[in-house]
Amino acid sequence: MHIDIISTVPELLDSPLSHSIMQRAQDKNLLTVRVHDLRPYGLGKHNSVDDYQFGGGAGMVMRCEPLAALIDELRAERDYDEVIYLTPDGERYAQRRANRLSLCQNLLLICGHYKGIDERIRETYVTLEISIGDYVLSGGELAAAVVVDSIGRLLPGVIGDETSALTDTFQDDLLAPPVYTRPAEWRGREVPAILRSGDTGAIEAWREEQALERTRQRRPDLLGDELADD
Amino acid sequence: MHIDIISTVPELLDSPLSHSIMQRAQDKNLLTVRVHDLRPYGLGKHNSVDDYQFGGGAGMVMRCEPLAALIDELRAERDYDEVIYLTPDGERYAQRRANRLSLCQNLLLICGHYKGIDERIRETYVTLEISIGDYVLSGGELAAAVVVDSIGRLLPGVIGDETSALTDTFQDDLLAPPVYTRPAEWRGREVPAILRSGDTGAIEAWREEQALERTRQRRPDLLGDELADD
Repeated sequence: MHIDIISTVPELLDSPLSHSIMQRAQDKNLLTVRVHDLRPYGLGKHNSVDDYQFGGGAGMVMRCEPLAALIDELRAERDYDEVIYLTPDGERYAQRRANRLSLCQNLLLICGHYKGIDERIRETYVTLEISIGDYVLSGGELAAAVVVDSIGRLLPGVIGDETSALTDTFQDDLLAPPVYTRPAEWRGREVPAILRSGDTGAIEAWREEQALERTRQRRPDLLGDELADD
Repeated sequence: MHIDIISTVPELLDSPLSHSIMQRAQDKNLLTVRVHDLRPYGLGKHNSVDDYQFGGGAGMVMRCEPLAALIDELRAERDYDEVIYLTPDGERYAQRRANRLSLCQNLLLICGHYKGIDERIRETYVTLEISIGDYVLSGGELAAAVVVDSIGRLLPGVIGDETSALTDTFQDDLLAPPVYTRPAEWRGREVPAILRSGDTGAIEAWREEQALERTRQRRPDLLGDELADD
């Protein structure tokens, strides 16, 4: 998979893209990520990428021309499955979308700043608008990093233990059950006996019950009505 | 405000914390963020911070002792308003929580990896569990960066234009209206005439209507029943 990212603060993405899973995915050539600096495409002698908004009010808006110039250049190089704009008013990002995006070949991610990008860029180029959650960030870069990480770890071969991603929270619409490791007793708190019983069937049943119970308590919205009424 | 972050991949947070708004907040001494490496607190000659999970199954679990040692050390230095664990089964993070956290003095953020941290650490120390969205990341670091950024930009004096954060999406439970900047016409697409009218009252009304319409179309869940039925 190849991912291009457009940003006015490309340096912000340096370390998230070069450590942990992202590093492994790129080292194995399973993923290439290139971050493109929008600033050289800015207008005038100050390479301006933003301007005051029409109608007045606080906050700058990112201009059409620099974004269009860079997007056109990138689109001449490859076909994108999706041109994604990271924005708080986009589709709320969830694991299902991550799963679907992990099957794509080429993605282009656009990071906004200030009040966002000119609406006409959204109308002209953007095929998918994603919000990573109901909160505001100072720019789209962290949102882009979140999307890249959530997709990257799903690419076959990136995570060492192939089955690990499939037992994650959300893959079955349930939260994960509690997990424990050694020591069996720590500061007077014991690991549940059933997890030490060696009875695989009973352990599996306990985990399912815990996952369901935790989901009921914390996120009943994830359960279908039938299950919630059980 | 002071924020401590516990991580096994502290380098991953280098660039997000040293650019853009985060840099500004720290340069102005409005925010200090320290990232603490958990690895030196690991056990044995390999400084192990994780181990197989009780009951079997894919994915490692972060051990109690290293986390407890570092948390105890940090808690000896200051009182935390909240000890926050970033986890997909936590409370879904939203702007209201960001607003509340921005009023705190000291926060401690714990980044998990693999299958998560031993449940007993959650029971013993954690006062708030936060999920930044319904998807799985390879670790809590990006989630921590998101939380720090969303809080940091709310601290008085961090954003240049004081009124900007208040007109953001979510501060009034509505998505933001479309924004435009120069040129007035771009590739045959014109900025709505009303935004160029100079009629402040009409512009305000248009923006409210657009914000409401966009919220109705994209995120009806954000609207109370009364408004949704309007």
